[in-house]
Amino acid sequence: MKTQQYLVKPGKAVKLSAWNTDDDGSLDKADAPPLLTQMQQELAHWQERLHAESKQALLVVLQARDAAGKDGVVKNVIAAFNPNGVSVSNFKVPTEEEKAHDFLWRVHARAPRHGLIGVFNRSHYEDVLVTRVYDMIDSKTAERRLAQIRNFEELLADSGTRIVKIYLHISPDEQKQRLQDRLDDPEKHWKFNPGDLKDREKWDKFTAAYEDALSTSTEVAPWYVVPADRKWYRDLVISQVLLDTLKDMNPQYPEITFDPSKITIK
Amino acid sequence: MKTQQYLVKPGKAVKLSAWNTDDDGSLDKADAPPLLTQMQQELAHWQERLHAESKQALLVVLQARDAAGKDGVVKNVIAAFNPNGVSVSNFKVPTEEEKAHDFLWRVHARAPRHGLIGVFNRSHYEDVLVTRVYDMIDSKTAERRLAQIRNFEELLADSGTRIVKIYLHISPDEQKQRLQDRLDDPEKHWKFNPGDLKDREKWDKFTAAYEDALSTSTEVAPWYVVPADRKWYRDLVISQVLLDTLKDMNPQYPEITFDPSKITIK
Repeated sequence: MKTQQYLVKPGKAVKLSAWNTDDDGSLDKADAPPLLTQMQQELAHWQERLHAESKQALLVVLQARDAAGKDGVVKNVIAAFNPNGVSVSNFKVPTEEEKAHDFLWRVHARAPRHGLIGVFNRSHYEDVLVTRVYDMIDSKTAERRLAQIRNFEELLADSGTRIVKIYLHISPDEQKQRLQDRLDDPEKHWKFNPGDLKDREKWDKFTAAYEDALSTSTEVAPWYVVPADRKWYRDLVISQVLLDTLKDMNPQYPEITFDPSKITIK
Repeated sequence: MKTQQYLVKPGKAVKLSAWNTDDDGSLDKADAPPLLTQMQQELAHWQERLHAESKQALLVVLQARDAAGKDGVVKNVIAAFNPNGVSVSNFKVPTEEEKAHDFLWRVHARAPRHGLIGVFNRSHYEDVLVTRVYDMIDSKTAERRLAQIRNFEELLADSGTRIVKIYLHISPDEQKQRLQDRLDDPEKHWKFNPGDLKDREKWDKFTAAYEDALSTSTEVAPWYVVPADRKWYRDLVISQVLLDTLKDMNPQYPEITFDPSKITIK
């Protein structure tokens, strides 16, 4: 599977209207499950190597509008990894303590150590998205934060952390359908947040803010705009992106400091 | 499946030699995979309810000798849960900072918040096990720590955290076989730690220390001695214990504060 077409090329401006939300890669939905299962096995294998090597880390940043599938990606893709080596951080509205620090403080504390995979379910990008749409910060502050984010991600990259940033690209119609599903199914009521409708009304302002956020795509911390209207295709694309990334990191089993043939277990 | 026979009854002394390591519950290994798959689905369902409710937490403590299968349990059983709602903490040799605090400080910081499942892969019990076997603390200190552990676990329980403690019970022969496998298979070399052989030589001292640790089995934080010579049976037993625990906690989807029929999505 090719994923290059979903990569935001560093330095290139993004117009989201030009990116598809409903690609299916000319694949059949019926073919997806075995493909996903195979990739999950490969992901687990590469994670074990990453863990054994313990010299690099992988940070996956998930950003999206409500109901675009962040939780679904965690449940279907991230679940492929051994829970011992992966940690999901959910960033909510900042606490008083968090607000009393710079905006990168709380995310920095959750950066994965070598050998681990960290997943940010929402992230430091909220501080240039929701804050901006609701005029909690001005454009100048947003610009400064985007520069600070670039520096921060470079710092992580310099110490061996590979960063992959995923924007789940959903259409307004598909979002409407999914929010309606949450209203219609009693077992999904708890997932419905009336506040999501306010965000939906500000669709275009969010689009503009996302387009600026996507400008932070760099070689060491690329953004992918993943078509998210079809859940099964979204999962395949993200699995492939993570697999390609892990293979490129190419973690190695460590050299051992003992001679196995000379050890006798009594 | 019944698991009651593996529960350490509160107040009852444990002689590990009287507990089987190779039980199979009169089950066939070939029947295990579909049974495990079904339980994994049920575990995922109950975790979603726990998460939706967000008024209780579950803490799973895994303790065992080397190669007894702690990592295997995380990989095969804990993996059933949505990664969004579970967090595995691996406690290694304490850092300087950790040693400058009381022994419960670092584990307390990793206690799961309401709605989440926390897994301790090794735990505060190391501070009455390895420390004791290697004479880093005396019996009096160990006794005091065991009392402090009881108080600590009661504190967690009082605020809605259910605790399940699992001791993976393996035989010396099975451990020998597994350590030898790590020496024989180059892809497993990184898992072999020559220090494990030192622990193995102190088998009986560890047994005595575990027996004392198991005396902290209480209503709110019970110990289970799980037969661990057969990996497939071990996974089934632990899945069943967790499932029974979650069902007993009986988390409920929260009442909603809005009327779904009155909401129109534009």
